[in-house]
Amino acid sequence: MRIAQVAPLYEAVPPGAYGGTERVIAMLCDGLVAQGHDVTLFGPETSETDAKLEAFEPPLRERFSGDELVNLAPHLHLRMLAELYERADEFDVIHSHLDIWTLPFTHLCDRPTVLTMHGRLDLDHLRDLLPRYGSVPLVSISDDQRLAVADLDLTWAATVYNGLDLTAYSEVPHDPDGYLGFVGRIAEEKGPLAAIEISRRTGLPLRMAAKVDPLDVSYYEEEVRPQMGPDVDFVGEIDEGEKPAFYAGARATLFPSDWPEPFGLVMIESLAAGTPVIALRRGSVPEVIEDGVSGFICDDVDEMVEAAERIGEIDPDACRRRAERFSAERMCRGYVEVYEALVRGPSPRRAAAQGGAASPTAIDGVPLPRRAVPVPGVIGGPPVTSTGGR
Amino acid sequence: MRIAQVAPLYEAVPPGAYGGTERVIAMLCDGLVAQGHDVTLFGPETSETDAKLEAFEPPLRERFSGDELVNLAPHLHLRMLAELYERADEFDVIHSHLDIWTLPFTHLCDRPTVLTMHGRLDLDHLRDLLPRYGSVPLVSISDDQRLAVADLDLTWAATVYNGLDLTAYSEVPHDPDGYLGFVGRIAEEKGPLAAIEISRRTGLPLRMAAKVDPLDVSYYEEEVRPQMGPDVDFVGEIDEGEKPAFYAGARATLFPSDWPEPFGLVMIESLAAGTPVIALRRGSVPEVIEDGVSGFICDDVDEMVEAAERIGEIDPDACRRRAERFSAERMCRGYVEVYEALVRGPSPRRAAAQGGAASPTAIDGVPLPRRAVPVPGVIGGPPVTSTGGR
Repeated sequence: MRIAQVAPLYEAVPPGAYGGTERVIAMLCDGLVAQGHDVTLFGPETSETDAKLEAFEPPLRERFSGDELVNLAPHLHLRMLAELYERADEFDVIHSHLDIWTLPFTHLCDRPTVLTMHGRLDLDHLRDLLPRYGSVPLVSISDDQRLAVADLDLTWAATVYNGLDLTAYSEVPHDPDGYLGFVGRIAEEKGPLAAIEISRRTGLPLRMAAKVDPLDVSYYEEEVRPQMGPDVDFVGEIDEGEKPAFYAGARATLFPSDWPEPFGLVMIESLAAGTPVIALRRGSVPEVIEDGVSGFICDDVDEMVEAAERIGEIDPDACRRRAERFSAERMCRGYVEVYEALVRGPSPRRAAAQGGAASPTAIDGVPLPRRAVPVPGVIGGPPVTSTGGR
Repeated sequence: MRIAQVAPLYEAVPPGAYGGTERVIAMLCDGLVAQGHDVTLFGPETSETDAKLEAFEPPLRERFSGDELVNLAPHLHLRMLAELYERADEFDVIHSHLDIWTLPFTHLCDRPTVLTMHGRLDLDHLRDLLPRYGSVPLVSISDDQRLAVADLDLTWAATVYNGLDLTAYSEVPHDPDGYLGFVGRIAEEKGPLAAIEISRRTGLPLRMAAKVDPLDVSYYEEEVRPQMGPDVDFVGEIDEGEKPAFYAGARATLFPSDWPEPFGLVMIESLAAGTPVIALRRGSVPEVIEDGVSGFICDDVDEMVEAAERIGEIDPDACRRRAERFSAERMCRGYVEVYEALVRGPSPRRAAAQGGAASPTAIDGVPLPRRAVPVPGVIGGPPVTSTGGR
């Protein structure tokens, strides 16, 4: 298949360090090329990919900040989309990672477009906007992500979990007596204070490998750093090459994320290194972690403290086996099935006219809900996991 | 000609009260229909027009504010544009008043698009973005407006001054002994404090007919209101019907706007009522007012005080004659010439490929600079006024 991939222009693909979406796009492009597809990546200069690169801008974050970025970025993304859609006939399917900015172009050509929604969906303007494009096929990166818009009439093509290249993680030996690990970004919703509290109460050392965005510097300086005792080692942002050893050296990875995380790459990176995850029950966590098998799912910090003390019960091999559900190969297969169904389906113009879906009905043989997944216990019924449940 | 007009969705066309762009679009639509053109207005519900109305949303400002408006408005405008460009073949020319949001669609069809730039152009993101669409024909609403981007390689189709329906103003008698008038919006750059100072120093009463936007309430309460003495009558926002009498009752209209105003409808409304304008030398002012004939152009508040004391020297009939240069009919003629030249020119795709212009070379017989007008005294050469100079 001739596939166009469209990446945000903020960071190179793959990114230097922090940037989950960009890393996923990089693996998807390389994986699809490895499977013999003809892939063109529309994205920033300095990206490195096995796909053909249509480079548009040096990564925006290197050049702009603040208001200038806010004012200019939408228009540079729209320009890239315009140039892609002018050439839409060259592709069998267009897969955009720019979410709603892509929507206005989807009906302007006869080629199907699928959007992966990489962010949270519980935002007012998304609730208002998405139903206006109800026939455009969307991919969620967890079933939980859809719950915020479960009452809206949307076309969900599939849930395709983010994937990881497991090979780099397969060699490192897990240290069951290591530190507690925290990886990601210093921001209130990521729970860095909970991680510090768990370390203090268990007496276990904590290593934090985390980025501090300019916006979060004052939170870090005023709220987080004063809480760090001598048992906390703040190592700052780490790159992809450093990650396997960082995770493997931890007895457990703490994931005290206190917002509906749509996916959480940190969890699968940890599992791939054989390191169990201790997480709050939020967002995608119950779809990624099997409670008591590949980690513990907790309802509060007290339970996370208890879990840290029992972490030796978890088998590192069970973690690695769990990670295999989230391999790059599996992600690529999931997306190829979506593309194939779209190519077989009606054209986007026809789908829009019918108000209906140009979407597949099953992934991995498991039937898909065409509309959003119901909220368990709220609207009724358990979530359906498109990759086959857990 | 079959002409699509595209209006912002914030306010109805014409607007209830404040909203110069919307009023101009309303007059343009009605004027083009009166000339026999087939006009379709893409804009908000509750608009009233002689054109065919393709209504998209109730005016956004009635429903949203703050962050919600900022997050949602671009996407609702893009959706309207997408639906228009899906039907581009139904029109001979597309005239958009949404400026840069329109740009990504311009090359996706074979019909020419022209954008009127209604706002200031001295903004970083515009300087970065506009040259990327250098072949898209742009209309400025004053020659001065272009100066901020005079060094960029853009395609200026024309300057077409905003127009006014003069009939409502032609009947009201000008009162040479009336108050000083201030019309517009309370905001620092509009100079309300200068107006109050001029009133105090001349001993002439001031009437202010001005809107206070939610964002400007604290400026009004803290900076402006405390300066208002007993000789200042603040009447708040007035509607179109009240304007002719308000202007005519003023001996002069103060226009102490201290930013590069792209056009300034207040000035022509005042002139149409026979009321001279006392203005700071900024933006379009020297293109609208003839110093000493239809008002005074001043370099500071001291000069504006002097001018107010000499205002009896100005002949009201000279003001009305000046206003005729800015009639709705003249504006419509200016735009029709632009449309005709575009329809005769190469298709937008071809123009983009050539990096060249699909633009007219003259308006009212006066040759047009294809590129931006040079800055007098800075880059050299006087500005060229497309409606024939003054």
